[in-house]
Amino acid sequence: MGRSSDARNKILTAAQSLIELRGYSALGVAEICKAAGVPKGSFYYFFESKEALALTVIDEHWAAQRRDWTGVLAGDGKPLERLRRLFEVTEAAQRAGQQSCGTVSGCLFGNLTLELSNQAEAIRVRLQEIFDAQVGMVEAVIAEARDRGEVDVANTREAARSVVAQLEGQVLFAKLFNNTSHLDVLWANCLALLGARIRQEVPAAS
Amino acid sequence: MGRSSDARNKILTAAQSLIELRGYSALGVAEICKAAGVPKGSFYYFFESKEALALTVIDEHWAAQRRDWTGVLAGDGKPLERLRRLFEVTEAAQRAGQQSCGTVSGCLFGNLTLELSNQAEAIRVRLQEIFDAQVGMVEAVIAEARDRGEVDVANTREAARSVVAQLEGQVLFAKLFNNTSHLDVLWANCLALLGARIRQEVPAAS
Repeated sequence: MGRSSDARNKILTAAQSLIELRGYSALGVAEICKAAGVPKGSFYYFFESKEALALTVIDEHWAAQRRDWTGVLAGDGKPLERLRRLFEVTEAAQRAGQQSCGTVSGCLFGNLTLELSNQAEAIRVRLQEIFDAQVGMVEAVIAEARDRGEVDVANTREAARSVVAQLEGQVLFAKLFNNTSHLDVLWANCLALLGARIRQEVPAAS
Repeated sequence: MGRSSDARNKILTAAQSLIELRGYSALGVAEICKAAGVPKGSFYYFFESKEALALTVIDEHWAAQRRDWTGVLAGDGKPLERLRRLFEVTEAAQRAGQQSCGTVSGCLFGNLTLELSNQAEAIRVRLQEIFDAQVGMVEAVIAEARDRGEVDVANTREAARSVVAQLEGQVLFAKLFNNTSHLDVLWANCLALLGARIRQEVPAAS
């Protein structure tokens, strides 16, 4: 790897970490370069603006998360088991983040949605695409479960959006209270939202 | 009203509007004073810092919202009817905001939670208190409904938190897509989360 792309990666890594910790607006390019250990000139060689950097951070984070979600949701097993695994993976990721930096950083996409979506149209559009894709991936699993008669859902798109909304809402609480146990109820709530017929097999949420 | 408290109100009104539009970190004291039409010296007469101002904005917004929520949730009518009314009031408020400023601004408390809770401990604590109070108000109604045999809930606190989480998640989507119709499903989802026995009386979510 040449020096140039190494500097680009350092900027991206520092930016993602700083955005997760402190949001987007609070950051300056100088601070990002300092954390990355690269001169400011390098920044503008790779990114034409802070917004362009943020879009790249979003894209790279989504590329990684989409791989994880695809591995879980399009993998083997019954559809509802795969959906349950998605919540387990989400909780594990939030717990790992909390252990590494002391606080639950929440969902990068949710954070940027509430901070920025009314200020930066390019970022809003990208976040819309990502949430649409997430909802689509969850919807495919719900449709499979419906075909198996395991859930009672009139509108699979709406149901998938409600499942993702519940996830975002509980991640918000996990971040606010710096407590990942708020995510424990996600599976029981998902089954309730889907009118799932296997609810009795699931332990009651504590 | 004397000139002094008038200036304070102008600062608060401008700050709330700017924070709703653009978040907290993106704002400077000079910009807030300019929007309020008051000299910067007045700002520091009333508020010792931008954070102190944000806490006052949060407190005033919550005082007003708590009055609304209390009026709805502690009012007359069956408990689930009052809970339904809470979602109608929320949707109406988001729609009114969209009509007045062109975009759905979302929930001030949710916005500040995802933007700030890991940066400003005083703000985090205040937001925790507010969401705890909201959950408590919803919990009281759920407990009433449970006593009437209308919902099937093992843990009223957890159920109330899930209802508020679903609200925050769908408001996030309403803001991201600048579309209040995302809030239409809140009532059906609330009933599903509560295992409500009157689901069949409710029209299916469109």
